[in-house]
Amino acid sequence: MARTYAAITGIHGFVPEYVLSNKELEKMVDTNDEWIVSRTGIRERRILKVPDAGSSYLGIKAVEGLLKKTNTDPSEIDLVICSTATPDMMFPDTANIISDRVGIRKAFTFDLHAACSGFLFALTTGAKYIESGGFKKVIIVGADKMSSITDYTDRATCILFGDGAGAVLLEPTEEPIGVMDSLLRSDGVGTKYLYQKGGGSYHPATHETVDNKEHFIYQDGKPVFKAAIEGMADVVGKMMARNGLAADDVSWVVPHQANLRIIEQVARYASFPMEKVMVNIHKYGNTTTATIPLCLWEYQDRLKKGDNLILTAFGGGFTWGAIWVKWAYNP
Amino acid sequence: MARTYAAITGIHGFVPEYVLSNKELEKMVDTNDEWIVSRTGIRERRILKVPDAGSSYLGIKAVEGLLKKTNTDPSEIDLVICSTATPDMMFPDTANIISDRVGIRKAFTFDLHAACSGFLFALTTGAKYIESGGFKKVIIVGADKMSSITDYTDRATCILFGDGAGAVLLEPTEEPIGVMDSLLRSDGVGTKYLYQKGGGSYHPATHETVDNKEHFIYQDGKPVFKAAIEGMADVVGKMMARNGLAADDVSWVVPHQANLRIIEQVARYASFPMEKVMVNIHKYGNTTTATIPLCLWEYQDRLKKGDNLILTAFGGGFTWGAIWVKWAYNP
Repeated sequence: MARTYAAITGIHGFVPEYVLSNKELEKMVDTNDEWIVSRTGIRERRILKVPDAGSSYLGIKAVEGLLKKTNTDPSEIDLVICSTATPDMMFPDTANIISDRVGIRKAFTFDLHAACSGFLFALTTGAKYIESGGFKKVIIVGADKMSSITDYTDRATCILFGDGAGAVLLEPTEEPIGVMDSLLRSDGVGTKYLYQKGGGSYHPATHETVDNKEHFIYQDGKPVFKAAIEGMADVVGKMMARNGLAADDVSWVVPHQANLRIIEQVARYASFPMEKVMVNIHKYGNTTTATIPLCLWEYQDRLKKGDNLILTAFGGGFTWGAIWVKWAYNP
Repeated sequence: MARTYAAITGIHGFVPEYVLSNKELEKMVDTNDEWIVSRTGIRERRILKVPDAGSSYLGIKAVEGLLKKTNTDPSEIDLVICSTATPDMMFPDTANIISDRVGIRKAFTFDLHAACSGFLFALTTGAKYIESGGFKKVIIVGADKMSSITDYTDRATCILFGDGAGAVLLEPTEEPIGVMDSLLRSDGVGTKYLYQKGGGSYHPATHETVDNKEHFIYQDGKPVFKAAIEGMADVVGKMMARNGLAADDVSWVVPHQANLRIIEQVARYASFPMEKVMVNIHKYGNTTTATIPLCLWEYQDRLKKGDNLILTAFGGGFTWGAIWVKWAYNP
């Protein structure tokens, strides 16, 4: 029995219209454009201003576009996994809301939560469903409205995050192409450095949790910065070694966009020139689970069938990982 | 190449000590024991009273017990999936917190959100990882502290929910045993009947959302009741038909414990006598993603190797499904 591979057969992304520039942030908190750019690489980020719209709004736009460009009828979709750190609600799941609004009614759906690594974990999970047989069309959508949990009086974090979504279509093939290998990791050593304290079963929402700003993202930047570089460099190295891949064999590195300096360090450790590294953090900031599909979406015209891509991410938990993808189609 | 199956090789459950009886609820809201029992089958439920403890507290107890009784070293675990509707926090994921506290450091972890069907969706997902090869020990834990989102002034919902957790260990085998087949479904037609409106990106927590009680579970019981019976009966019937299973071939039905009347109707439609149906709703109420593993845990001494089990659930979204499990070991 030939192995079935899960090929990415389409990619689409969506970012909201409103641009929050460093100049505008200068008016909101004690910061400046030069400082933000030199420390993070971020020049602007997109913010969803539509009232009463959660992450599903972004995900719907990405999935609608994906269905259209791949000529896929919603009734053909078997499974929708939404990776998000900012679901519309705790339940129903955001994948369910997205599917409902785009007319997907014959699938099953769930949300996957693994902070900034969510897209990699969801992509690997979707690939397992394809590889097992019986699943023909699977959508993985990463959607995060980070502005909904960002404290715009905290100059340490409000400069970092933006809103966005990206979605891929996975389909089976017997050609050795698509999601080739994944190396995923978690370690609870990081739980104290990056979290949203309030709003779950640990600290349910009260007037006090709102006043204490527990519903905003908290990050102790330094240990996360260090662990991110070490973690991503480690799994990228191991992933490539166990698949016999040299740096020259890799066409593109697709890193989570949290900080340009992290991206540059990981590229340096793995001996990748920055020309091979997808970067759009200057335009969108950290969109959490949407960064990787938004990169693929923006670079899609430069991707050729057979290109080896290394996707890597690091985030809260800690959670991190690397995936080797062989791109499945020409532009 | 022989097919690899994912066998359940261990089960453990945990419920907190405090018993919230119908008699006690009579003092809190306008209700009475006879009404609650006749409409729902629930006599009491367990409530976690430990301060500052979220769903992970329950999950840790279940996973600790599982590791102990299966003589499993935490370092052997490859993957932990936590299904929950009440995560400790939005991030880090509750699976990560549980893993950290029980010493699991070499796995990767994520939370899966699919409301009351979460355990079935997570069990199927864990099985896909096992079936794909390369994963030797996977833990699926369902943990919900429903008391954290229950409004104890709302007599329609506060009688229904309880706190609990259950966990299973999955391991590969070439024997045709374990998770044999799954039929899972979602349909966003149900999003308006069962939700927690506030606290996510749709309605982030504010003083107003707290005052409006948006952080509590909302349920329009009648349409959910009807859809639950139809949904579960449909997937159980289809699951059995496509595997050539007659009612007599099935040793146990393991239904989500939301309402005894729903369970009885589903059993009737599928021609199962109630003697074959696992029920513990009278003791625990609806523990959301924990109901099915808590049933397996309580009935484990009556399960024999080769027994055919049909697991079925229905919940918010709507999400629903059925899984055929062949039990893998004798008591």
